Amino acid sequence: MVKETHIKPEIRVLGIDDSPLVSDKIMIVGAIMRGGEWLEGVLRTDITRDGFDATVRLSEMICGSKHYGQIRAVMLNGITFGGFNIVDLRELYERTRLPVIVIMREMPDMEKIKEALKNLSDPEGRYEMITRAGNIIKVQTIKRGKPIFIQAYGIEAQDAANIVQATSIHSRIPEPIRVAHIIATGVILGESKKRA
Amino acid sequence: MVKETHIKPEIRVLGIDDSPLVSDKIMIVGAIMRGGEWLEGVLRTDITRDGFDATVRLSEMICGSKHYGQIRAVMLNGITFGGFNIVDLRELYERTRLPVIVIMREMPDMEKIKEALKNLSDPEGRYEMITRAGNIIKVQTIKRGKPIFIQAYGIEAQDAANIVQATSIHSRIPEPIRVAHIIATGVILGESKKRA
Repeated sequence: MVKETHIKPEIRVLGIDDSPLVSDKIMIVGAIMRGGEWLEGVLRTDITRDGFDATVRLSEMICGSKHYGQIRAVMLNGITFGGFNIVDLRELYERTRLPVIVIMREMPDMEKIKEALKNLSDPEGRYEMITRAGNIIKVQTIKRGKPIFIQAYGIEAQDAANIVQATSIHSRIPEPIRVAHIIATGVILGESKKRA
Repeated sequence: MVKETHIKPEIRVLGIDDSPLVSDKIMIVGAIMRGGEWLEGVLRTDITRDGFDATVRLSEMICGSKHYGQIRAVMLNGITFGGFNIVDLRELYERTRLPVIVIMREMPDMEKIKEALKNLSDPEGRYEMITRAGNIIKVQTIKRGKPIFIQAYGIEAQDAANIVQATSIHSRIPEPIRVAHIIATGVILGESKKRA
C-alpha cells in the first residue's frame, strides 16, 4: 500500500543505525528528531550479528516507544545492520504501518554483496531480501556535492525524497541518520566517528 | 584563575550527564554541540557508583577527544554522577583548562544532601567537595517559567550565564545537557525519559 505524506516542517522522523561490530550482540540506536533539528528521544535495542532478527527487533523498538504515535517516517542507514542482518522493508512497514526510507551514501555494489553473502547461512534467501527492497533513487540533498541514494517502502518516491531533502540540514545525510550514527559509535567506541 | 569568554553563536559546548543506576559501573555520556543546535560528537566513559573517580574519568574523556581543541566550555548535569561520585570543579578545570558550568533544575537542599552522605564512606570529605563548588547563581533561560541554577569555575559568572542562555533553545535546560541526558537514558533503558 502506498500512502501520500504531507511534509510539515516539524515532521518527526526516526533515524536508525547500528554500532560497530565489537561483539555478537550489536546495539541499534534510534534517534527521533523533529524537523531534522531537535532531538526528542533516543531508542535502543540489540540484534544478533549476521542474524535474522533485525526486522522484528526494530519493529518492537518502534512500536514500543512512547513516541510511536508521533513518528511519521523511519529512516535506515542502509538495509543491513550488525553485519548482514537484513531488514525486510515490507515486513517492517507492515508491522509498524510507517513509511520506511533506506539511506545510502553510494550505489550498492550488488556483485560484491552477493560474494560476501556466500560466507553466511542462506545466501540466496538473504540476497532475495536485499533485491526485493525495491528501486534505488538518487536524491540531491545539498546544492553542490555528491548525491545520496534511497529506497522507500509505503511512501511515494517523491514524498520520500522530499522528507530526505527537508531533513538534510547540516550535511548531505539526513539529520536523524547522522545523529543516530554519532550516538551509536560514540557510546560503543567512547568517541563518535565522522562518517554516517 | 578566571578567564573572560567571548561567546560566538557557534560556540562548542560539551554537555555531560550520567545514566540510570542499573549497575555498579555507570555510563557517562558527553554531547558536543555547536551553538546549542548541532550535535557534533558523542563521548562515553564509565565511573564507579558512589565512587571517587568521576573527576579523573571525565578529564580523561574530555582531553582524549579529537574535539578537545574546539570545546569552549563543559556543562555538567549536577555536581554528582553515578549516585554520589562528586566532580571536583577546580580539579576538572585544572586538568582540562576548560571553564566548567554546573546546571541544576532546583536549588540544592544541602541538609538533605548531608543526610544522604551519611550512608557513604567519607561523608565529611564529600560534603566539603560539594560546598567548595562555589556560589549558586540563578539564571532565567526562558522568558516565562522557572529559572535554573548554575555554579561555574574558570569563567566569570556573567559569561557562564550568557553561555547557558545562548544554548537553551528548546527548553529552559541548555541543549548540550538536554541531549546528553536523552542519550544516556535512552541507551541504557531502551527509551529516553523526559526530564534532564
